[in-house]
Amino acid sequence: MTQTKNGGSSRPIPRRPRVRHGLVIVNTGEGKGKTTAALGVIFRAWGRDFQIRMFQFIKHTGARFGEQRAAQKLNIPIESLGDGFTWLSKDMDRTEALAVEQWHRCKDAILEGKEDIIVLDEFTYALHYGWVPVVDAVDTLQRRPDDLHVIITGRYAPQELIDCADLVTEMKLIKHPYEEKGIRAQQGIEF
Amino acid sequence: MTQTKNGGSSRPIPRRPRVRHGLVIVNTGEGKGKTTAALGVIFRAWGRDFQIRMFQFIKHTGARFGEQRAAQKLNIPIESLGDGFTWLSKDMDRTEALAVEQWHRCKDAILEGKEDIIVLDEFTYALHYGWVPVVDAVDTLQRRPDDLHVIITGRYAPQELIDCADLVTEMKLIKHPYEEKGIRAQQGIEF
Repeated sequence: MTQTKNGGSSRPIPRRPRVRHGLVIVNTGEGKGKTTAALGVIFRAWGRDFQIRMFQFIKHTGARFGEQRAAQKLNIPIESLGDGFTWLSKDMDRTEALAVEQWHRCKDAILEGKEDIIVLDEFTYALHYGWVPVVDAVDTLQRRPDDLHVIITGRYAPQELIDCADLVTEMKLIKHPYEEKGIRAQQGIEF
Repeated sequence: MTQTKNGGSSRPIPRRPRVRHGLVIVNTGEGKGKTTAALGVIFRAWGRDFQIRMFQFIKHTGARFGEQRAAQKLNIPIESLGDGFTWLSKDMDRTEALAVEQWHRCKDAILEGKEDIIVLDEFTYALHYGWVPVVDAVDTLQRRPDDLHVIITGRYAPQELIDCADLVTEMKLIKHPYEEKGIRAQQGIEF
């Protein structure tokens, strides 16, 4: 029988329940590692048998980058809905419509809260370009289940999103191989 | 029926040869996401069947965080050799000796170059505290096989390391849940 600190009880010390505080995490800035750090959380969380769901904005539907390949092998849903363009799009209406459609899927998933972690990859662009109202995003995040983590990546995170987030990291470029040596993006590292 | 990307062309598009330039990548700064982004690269690289090996400095040997659990399930070697302390160590000689021993293992692996990616997690502390000479680290990186990627994480990356790196990102803290709301580190997210 375990002796407890609070005098004389012969009952074992009850473990504190693992109270999970769902966090809103934003990875922003001009540097590398925003999506990559979100994938790192997925890796950790998968190691702990968390339920994970990732939505990718912008990136081509049907993309087969390293992350999609890994996710498929591990049965982690990554849902990409985009045409690969943002401000460079030749059909801006379509680019915007895809982002809005993707947001509605995200919103349903966030409010439903069936997963432990939901990642909205490159979602900030949809906010920055005004395709999704920031107030709608913030309201959805605030109405999510208490224990749901949401990770949002991308440049130009609007201030209202930062205000409602728990953890915000800016990835800042110090040195880059493209710029300095003309090296192309490396498979398995950057995509 | 699967739709191919290059929709209907009868001739395969010739693929450019995949020349791989091994990169030295440094994730540094005071913010979150340094180790996490390295894990994200591991996730991607694993998706492409790369051979990966991760060495962790500082962290306790036998740590069972999310990343160790995931790596074990995926058969990715993560070798931790540390006592969990840096400047707070009560037995500094031991802390230093473990770091030096771990560095020698890393050095062998880097020069041997059997893997595609080698991660030296929290290695910068060993450099910062003078346990491993920076000149030894830089020399080893420069003598590595051309196609080997090496990722180094941790605060206080010395300038000589930054000078020899290809890609350096500073993770900068913008907002943090501990500080602002007193929330504890969340399992599956931060460890």
